[in-house]
Amino acid sequence: MSLLARIQSPADVRALPLSDLPALAEEIRQRIIGVVSNGGGHLTSNLGVTELTIALHRVFDFASDRLLFDVGHQCYPHKLLTGRADRFETIRKAGGLSGFPSTAESEYDLFNVGHAGTAIATAVGLARGDAMQERDTRVVALVGDASIVNGVAFEGLNQAGTLKRQMLVILNDNSWGIAPTQGGFAEHLARFRSSRTYEEIKERAKTLLPSIPVVGKALFDAIDHLKEGIKATMSPNQIFEQMGFQYIGPVDGHDVNHLIELLELIKDVNHPVLLHVHTVKGRGCEWAAADPGRFHSPGGIEIEAGKVTVKSGAGKSWTSAFADALCELAREDERVVALTAAMPDGTGLNRFQKEFPDRYLDCGIAESCTVDIAAGLARSGMRPVVAIYSTFLQRAFDQVFQEVALQNLPVVFCLDRAGLVGGDGAVHHGFLDIAYLRGLPGMVLMAPADEPELAAALRFAISQPTACAIRYPREKVPVEPLPDCPPFELGCARTVRSGADATILAYGVMTAPALDAAELLAAEGLDVAVVNARFAKPLDRRMVRDALADGRPTLTVEDHALQGGFGSAVLEAAQEMGLACTNLARSGMPDRFIEHGSRGGQLAEVGLDAAGIAAALQALIERSDRAGTSRKRRGASAQPAAGNDTVLTRS
Amino acid sequence: MSLLARIQSPADVRALPLSDLPALAEEIRQRIIGVVSNGGGHLTSNLGVTELTIALHRVFDFASDRLLFDVGHQCYPHKLLTGRADRFETIRKAGGLSGFPSTAESEYDLFNVGHAGTAIATAVGLARGDAMQERDTRVVALVGDASIVNGVAFEGLNQAGTLKRQMLVILNDNSWGIAPTQGGFAEHLARFRSSRTYEEIKERAKTLLPSIPVVGKALFDAIDHLKEGIKATMSPNQIFEQMGFQYIGPVDGHDVNHLIELLELIKDVNHPVLLHVHTVKGRGCEWAAADPGRFHSPGGIEIEAGKVTVKSGAGKSWTSAFADALCELAREDERVVALTAAMPDGTGLNRFQKEFPDRYLDCGIAESCTVDIAAGLARSGMRPVVAIYSTFLQRAFDQVFQEVALQNLPVVFCLDRAGLVGGDGAVHHGFLDIAYLRGLPGMVLMAPADEPELAAALRFAISQPTACAIRYPREKVPVEPLPDCPPFELGCARTVRSGADATILAYGVMTAPALDAAELLAAEGLDVAVVNARFAKPLDRRMVRDALADGRPTLTVEDHALQGGFGSAVLEAAQEMGLACTNLARSGMPDRFIEHGSRGGQLAEVGLDAAGIAAALQALIERSDRAGTSRKRRGASAQPAAGNDTVLTRS
Repeated sequence: MSLLARIQSPADVRALPLSDLPALAEEIRQRIIGVVSNGGGHLTSNLGVTELTIALHRVFDFASDRLLFDVGHQCYPHKLLTGRADRFETIRKAGGLSGFPSTAESEYDLFNVGHAGTAIATAVGLARGDAMQERDTRVVALVGDASIVNGVAFEGLNQAGTLKRQMLVILNDNSWGIAPTQGGFAEHLARFRSSRTYEEIKERAKTLLPSIPVVGKALFDAIDHLKEGIKATMSPNQIFEQMGFQYIGPVDGHDVNHLIELLELIKDVNHPVLLHVHTVKGRGCEWAAADPGRFHSPGGIEIEAGKVTVKSGAGKSWTSAFADALCELAREDERVVALTAAMPDGTGLNRFQKEFPDRYLDCGIAESCTVDIAAGLARSGMRPVVAIYSTFLQRAFDQVFQEVALQNLPVVFCLDRAGLVGGDGAVHHGFLDIAYLRGLPGMVLMAPADEPELAAALRFAISQPTACAIRYPREKVPVEPLPDCPPFELGCARTVRSGADATILAYGVMTAPALDAAELLAAEGLDVAVVNARFAKPLDRRMVRDALADGRPTLTVEDHALQGGFGSAVLEAAQEMGLACTNLARSGMPDRFIEHGSRGGQLAEVGLDAAGIAAALQALIERSDRAGTSRKRRGASAQPAAGNDTVLTRS
Repeated sequence: MSLLARIQSPADVRALPLSDLPALAEEIRQRIIGVVSNGGGHLTSNLGVTELTIALHRVFDFASDRLLFDVGHQCYPHKLLTGRADRFETIRKAGGLSGFPSTAESEYDLFNVGHAGTAIATAVGLARGDAMQERDTRVVALVGDASIVNGVAFEGLNQAGTLKRQMLVILNDNSWGIAPTQGGFAEHLARFRSSRTYEEIKERAKTLLPSIPVVGKALFDAIDHLKEGIKATMSPNQIFEQMGFQYIGPVDGHDVNHLIELLELIKDVNHPVLLHVHTVKGRGCEWAAADPGRFHSPGGIEIEAGKVTVKSGAGKSWTSAFADALCELAREDERVVALTAAMPDGTGLNRFQKEFPDRYLDCGIAESCTVDIAAGLARSGMRPVVAIYSTFLQRAFDQVFQEVALQNLPVVFCLDRAGLVGGDGAVHHGFLDIAYLRGLPGMVLMAPADEPELAAALRFAISQPTACAIRYPREKVPVEPLPDCPPFELGCARTVRSGADATILAYGVMTAPALDAAELLAAEGLDVAVVNARFAKPLDRRMVRDALADGRPTLTVEDHALQGGFGSAVLEAAQEMGLACTNLARSGMPDRFIEHGSRGGQLAEVGLDAAGIAAALQALIERSDRAGTSRKRRGASAQPAAGNDTVLTRS
């Protein structure tokens, strides 16, 4: 029986002989490599945090103590040690384990997280709340070096430093984050890590530790000694000390028994401690450690004849299409500059970086700052393009408001991962961007239907004097794009299929399933028009009038929340024009959080696949027929429908 | 002729003899004290920054160089020196100067700002953009000690530290910010300031400076010497050095000639410099300096018989009503804990702090962190109430999403300054909160009509198992509240006046002008019902059905943007219930930024006063009559209306 099979809860970790722990770590690693290779997931960060997770569960009891993950994608070893090993194969799959901490799964998961930088601040809240209720819990926040440069993390450190109680922040420093960590502080950490004395300190701490008693005043003296021991050879990190933390480190994050000794020593000190742990991203897996960015979150891995490749489905992604379009525009216009918040691979900007290194900025996991830098670039006359996930732009909402919209600056936001995102689930869906951006005066909101439209939308956006946002999903672009691609014109929709019986007003990526839905309905004798609205703001009012004027059933379709989204914009326009909306229906994401699974499965679940769209429209048509509010349809009179005559006209 | 009268532009500052500058500073102070005493505005921060502003305009040429203000309310001396002294009396008034930097006013204002922490990041963007375009500009960001602890400021420092060009960040450290600065870093600065060697350093720097040549390699040597000189007596601030800045300071921010010498010395160094300047908030005005928080942003000041009082209009503010209601609930429920992001006075929590010091947290200007701490408190079993301005919650949108809504945690958000805010203008209107919060699953959105309703809404919110947000404006509560106040029930509106001809669906504070509008229309024979919807989410569907079912003209009224707000929620519900919306109209804020002025004037400008609401409803009724879509009205048949029969029923 394997060691891991004997771990039903953290108590079992505490029952193992210390000497078994390195082997347990190795089993965890092999399990993670196997599952991620097969079905995809976060690999290198989890391989790096294995020993640290074992040590934490050995020393603390997180049934009552509090363990908070930052970002959360490094929770796999934690899941394996907290009663979820038997379901680990299901991770990120529909109905299976979440790829992030999940309060629904386990009492050991305190927060569902996937956005970075938040653990320290929430830990401060927990620590203060437990103290107010005189609860004697220990609080631990586990934070990566990419997260620690995030503004919220800094704000949290600033608050934590004032606590007069136990509070342990562990800086898991693998010098990487998702992409190599950016900024002055990262350079400082790098200088720190590269010091020749690192190994000396490790040796010195090892010899110091066993001789130290673990309780009482002696403990505090011991820690001071330990720190002094480190100080003797290396200056501890002043940033943390100046914020009120006792700083300890750096220590080797892969020596599990040493970590346990150290954590035992510091677990009960009554003031904030920052423990700086050095780990290797992809540790224990040669090919992963050699290219930790590539293997950060692969869709799956294949090893053939010693060659390791990342699985990727057939076809070109929207991300890749964006990268191509942006590079082409940057070749034409030297004012184009591209920015990412630590996501050069995820946003496709790695390609831009290679071709235009001087016009590329990676600002680290600091979305607010990224948008403000873009605003400064725009004010100086450049044409900044911020490539960012829809869900992460939420972190810079106020900067989009104040530094961009209020100044009327031409910043282009390219919102990748808009809509449902698949395996990353509820923490990552981009379901609010239309709602929160639509109220900003001057903001232009766009969505392309296919790859040529994405290029056209980007070209249009860069030509505009105001801020624009373009949304597209985590998906492949349609294999067969629409036959042509008229240029984008401000506030002009595009009719991609004519039809007399009903209209689907699709927004962007929903155009393709809407066309498929029209085909399905054509088979039932219904002649359905399909429009890509292209713009959620300014909305094409002629599109709305044409669709609604004669009471024809009209369905809006968007990969976004129904509150305040594209469909609401259509409703608002209809109301303002005094048009009846009784034959209008809206399809979009329902008012609940959608769990992880495949994007296709999620779209089907919420009725945003072709079948769901067809069903929604058919229900609307039937309701209209019953109410007699719709004009007579060809379909209703059983004439053959002209379903295959896809007509492309510019509206 | 006064010195100030001779300053038409910064060139005139540079033309003055150095010996005149202290007198110029004194004139600026007296001018600011006079104008703020008379008409209100930001006082103490502007008195603190006077010499520094003179020195900056003396040394730099911001016609081409770049000066960025953080927060921006400390821009008064800057406005007085950049051609706006003749209009200074109009500050914050309708049609007059803005109380914040304004790109519309002057080429010397690069960004319209009022939210804190953003200057360094935008400065990085400007610096990089100018460098990319080979423009030889100098960039200066002026940041207060309250702003520097904001996460975006930290992110900006982290990026700035990597610049290989000139970049000057001035830390204007008055140890205050708006409220006394919070957190471990503030304590560090405090220890730093209180060092006995501060005066020694100042003296030392003074004697060093005159002997130093101002150009060439010698300059850099000189700066190093200067720094070494400071180092000799005091360790410079390691945080900034570790982030890649050269640190200089602290220096006396009220010795204008010394500041000029120092700025001349460092203005052309080709790497990031942080100059730490020590100033006194309220400097030069004894009563203001003695209580800088009270005189931060008074509505006006009266000095009678040596006694200085802050003017405040008659009546009780919503802020004060909130403070009373919260204290009462906290007396009943010891789980209630209150949080502010550096706004104890502005949010009314100063009263809570006095009564419940152990259940009060001021997290500094760190809105994201404040919300995360609240989430941690809620997870630990407390009932956190975050008192925050609507516009500032935008800075924590992602935290409301991830740490609160996604976890389904019972955090109560009390959104002060919701809607139009008067003198603070476009940077501070709270016009988006409904739009960006409404898409969050589980979120409850409320608005009370008067003081008893605010207390009832708060009591309801604290009893709920999920997150709630309550919005109320910067205004006095209605002098005559509604005759009674039934408790809040989830998703239940309250009819406050019955009427057969038309319905006004008001949201919260708009109930009072809606009732006044109904009175106005009663005089014209129209019988208008008024409802306070109380909830924008979940919306009362019966309210919508009752209003729209028989085609009666219905007007929604909200102090919020029309895109995605309360009126849109009504439209969405109507559409989902298949109700015709052709007799529905929506009043709210238009799709443009509203300038500063009085709140009353702003409401009238956008049609949200009683007259505007009455006019909008009358226009709707006339349109309905013409279209024949409305059922027959009593008013239309010229019968006397029962306008005075105010009926209060619970729906």
